[in-house]
Amino acid sequence: MNFCSDCGEKVTLRIPDGDNVPRHVCDACGAIHYLNPKMVVGCIPEWDDQILLCRRAIEPRYGLWTLPAGFMENGETAAQGAARETLEEAGARVQIDQLYTFLNLPYINQIYVMFRGRLLDLDYAAGTESLEVMMFSEAEIPWKELAFRTIKITLENYFADRKNGSFDFHMGDVLPPNR
Amino acid sequence: MNFCSDCGEKVTLRIPDGDNVPRHVCDACGAIHYLNPKMVVGCIPEWDDQILLCRRAIEPRYGLWTLPAGFMENGETAAQGAARETLEEAGARVQIDQLYTFLNLPYINQIYVMFRGRLLDLDYAAGTESLEVMMFSEAEIPWKELAFRTIKITLENYFADRKNGSFDFHMGDVLPPNR
Repeated sequence: MNFCSDCGEKVTLRIPDGDNVPRHVCDACGAIHYLNPKMVVGCIPEWDDQILLCRRAIEPRYGLWTLPAGFMENGETAAQGAARETLEEAGARVQIDQLYTFLNLPYINQIYVMFRGRLLDLDYAAGTESLEVMMFSEAEIPWKELAFRTIKITLENYFADRKNGSFDFHMGDVLPPNR
Repeated sequence: MNFCSDCGEKVTLRIPDGDNVPRHVCDACGAIHYLNPKMVVGCIPEWDDQILLCRRAIEPRYGLWTLPAGFMENGETAAQGAARETLEEAGARVQIDQLYTFLNLPYINQIYVMFRGRLLDLDYAAGTESLEVMMFSEAEIPWKELAFRTIKITLENYFADRKNGSFDFHMGDVLPPNR
């Protein structure tokens, strides 16, 4: 952030009065521009003992497999966002069920919120951000070709819980990859 | 948003190629400025059968009672944010426990994420954003003077669950006040 989005003048990075964190402050109009974490919302689309994955047609991680997920938009609930992303990326309609994982990624200012979802039919098709969309049984999951650690963690929890016969909510923190 | 925060030129509100939502687009440098929901994080600070509330010294809802909560900051986890807000607003140290409520407020682009928290001592004191901080038993809760509906919902769930002897996770959507 270099310029004030309200008035167009240059901003300064400094701690405002009464605050304790540096912010982008506009000395021309007085606006303080806060930056906050973004939520990524998605789901595990289920059909019998299979789940749906998408192969990414965009960077980062072009060509790798992921659960449908993306940035939550203004004006929607987290569940609506998860259903929207599933429709956009996989052309698939889901009934969103329980909140399943909540993963903090403080080093990139993101929170991953993943639901369980029931596919309403098998009439899916790759959206513009996907190369292909496929159903996988547990034995078929491409563990070495998953796009993100958040997806790997979510799927590991999912199949472990399924084995135990009880899907518990999981909260966790994901550290930078080189630690 | 009127100006591009990258280059300072005027932005236009239009749907970018390949998108389906109007965004603030800079035709000078090509930047697309996305607006996403913000997370409010806080907790229910517990001590025996009492909980801590803060009386707001700031607008909105000056003079009304609330649980400690505020916007999650970049670089922290949701639980760290909840503990930070409790320290800032109530001068109180808490051990953050389970994720307790997740409330969508799509009409103001916010998500409230409230944890249960155990006060580590009773050495609290009003921060700059609070007029006073007090411990309340269930019978003493100022139901008519609560600052936000999210706080009322969280406390209603809390005391109902406590009566039932089991604190379940609650997810819900909060509609605009005039509906």
